[in-house]
Amino acid sequence: MAYEFRLTKQIQFVDTDTAGIMHFTNFFRLMEITEHSFYRSLGFSVFSIQSEDIIGFPRVQVSCDFKAPLYFEDKVEIHLLVRAISQKTISYSFIFRKSESESSEEVARGELTVACVTMRKNRTQMKSVPIPNTIRNKLDIAPKELFNP
Amino acid sequence: MAYEFRLTKQIQFVDTDTAGIMHFTNFFRLMEITEHSFYRSLGFSVFSIQSEDIIGFPRVQVSCDFKAPLYFEDKVEIHLLVRAISQKTISYSFIFRKSESESSEEVARGELTVACVTMRKNRTQMKSVPIPNTIRNKLDIAPKELFNP
Amino acid sequence: MAYEFRLTKQIQFVDTDTAGIMHFTNFFRLMEITEHSFYRSLGFSVFSIQSEDIIGFPRVQVSCDFKAPLYFEDKVEIHLLVRAISQKTISYSFIFRKSESESSEEVARGELTVACVTMRKNRTQMKSVPIPNTIRNKLDIAPKELFNP
Amino acid sequence: MAYEFRLTKQIQFVDTDTAGIMHFTNFFRLMEITEHSFYRSLGFSVFSIQSEDIIGFPRVQVSCDFKAPLYFEDKVEIHLLVRAISQKTISYSFIFRKSESESSEEVARGELTVACVTMRKNRTQMKSVPIPNTIRNKLDIAPKELFNP
Repeated sequence: MAYEFRLTKQIQFVDTDTAGIMHFTNFFRLMEITEHSFYRSLGFSVFSIQSEDIIGFPRVQVSCDFKAPLYFEDKVEIHLLVRAISQKTISYSFIFRKSESESSEEVARGELTVACVTMRKNRTQMKSVPIPNTIRNKLDIAPKELFNP
Repeated sequence: MAYEFRLTKQIQFVDTDTAGIMHFTNFFRLMEITEHSFYRSLGFSVFSIQSEDIIGFPRVQVSCDFKAPLYFEDKVEIHLLVRAISQKTISYSFIFRKSESESSEEVARGELTVACVTMRKNRTQMKSVPIPNTIRNKLDIAPKELFNP
Repeated sequence: MAYEFRLTKQIQFVDTDTAGIMHFTNFFRLMEITEHSFYRSLGFSVFSIQSEDIIGFPRVQVSCDFKAPLYFEDKVEIHLLVRAISQKTISYSFIFRKSESESSEEVARGELTVACVTMRKNRTQMKSVPIPNTIRNKLDIAPKELFNP
Repeated sequence: MAYEFRLTKQIQFVDTDTAGIMHFTNFFRLMEITEHSFYRSLGFSVFSIQSEDIIGFPRVQVSCDFKAPLYFEDKVEIHLLVRAISQKTISYSFIFRKSESESSEEVARGELTVACVTMRKNRTQMKSVPIPNTIRNKLDIAPKELFNP
């Protein structure tokens, strides 16, 4: 059972803006990329076509607090933590730290709450469903101290 | 003095994903586009180069709740409301409604809190500053009832 | 029958980069948005789900020449011209002009060649097919002089 | 002296569209990311602030041919080849191959021609200049046979 995952990414030029910093929408892009890598590390995919239906995890609530900007070519570590699990939803925290700064400075902290759904293969009839046990059994809640390092 | 602004957008193909819906990061893209149009409607720009410095409004806190998906070619109205103003920050709410549905269904609701900063023309030394009066004097807080329609 | 279409867009902050100009990938974004608006102006959609299958127009060849940069809040007119039609493909030219400059300066010129395909509703078995007559009959080739203004 | 570089990337969900495939604009995103990684492998950056000016490499001509679609979680190898160097420009070819397919199928082939420019630190006065020797001396033209594997 897993409750955390770490990914390190380098900021790409296309993701910066005229102010010279990474555009804030890309913090959410990076959260999702980390979440999907976490799923793959557990042996499944966020979007898997099964016999009759597709299982997916659309977002129901997301947020992010920004403390310092990221610049082109900065390296950032995204630290995913499982914060809460209900019957049909999972909540993640993501701590962004400059991975090569002396102090591992925290630059941002975000949250995603995702809901398990099924939909038909033609992408209609999205329906909230309980998280399958094959997925639920691989997840655990992260210890509180990891959120306040 | 202004406390609201409305923009209608049609969902573009590039902004959808394999699940057949608009990718959630684009709700933030649309919030920012609406915010910048609001500034232009008041006669200034979110990123203006002045004699010595640049005035900008980076995000310090953002969030969004999602109620229903948006599909390719859906039309959505984004309703910006000024929620709060402090000496150095502005908080906006954004209500997303399907603009051609019978019931004007609310599909999402987001918030952006932005901080006024100056930076040097070479994009260094970002510094939090009070909102200039030329901008502050054009903004008002939206009446409470607009948030609960 | 139609052979041209014009769309005017304002450059968004999110589409710029650290060099202070619109990132080049967004020229293709704007070409596609213009192409899709052209289809809607003719009464159909680039991605339409029909009884059994989906009709789509994936790209087979694209290019762009850049003459001058676009900055945040610049207004640009995208002028679509139908350049060629074969049994299964359509080729478009796109001329980008600063729409508020004195000289209507041409800043870029791009091309998209798209192929008509069908795919199953579950997004498999993409297959090249002749352009349906209901679409083909609405399109014409643009006169040569429009390409050299 | 270097004339080639390889990068392997996995297709992200955010980069796919309603047709279930990677949106074509992301082939250019991947070309640029590969180009920038190539520069870093040689010890410099595509966008470097020097004493007085910034050296950059904006695109003057780009193109791509698409042979097969890429799907979510596909792994693709991007093979950069230096195709030509003039006094002020560099031309690259990029061959995209599915990196885990039996046959290493080529799915797309693109080209970028970039021009060396200087601009002032405030991002004005972009000016075409000869490629500095410190950069030019690290680059070589790829042998012809690499383009026709």
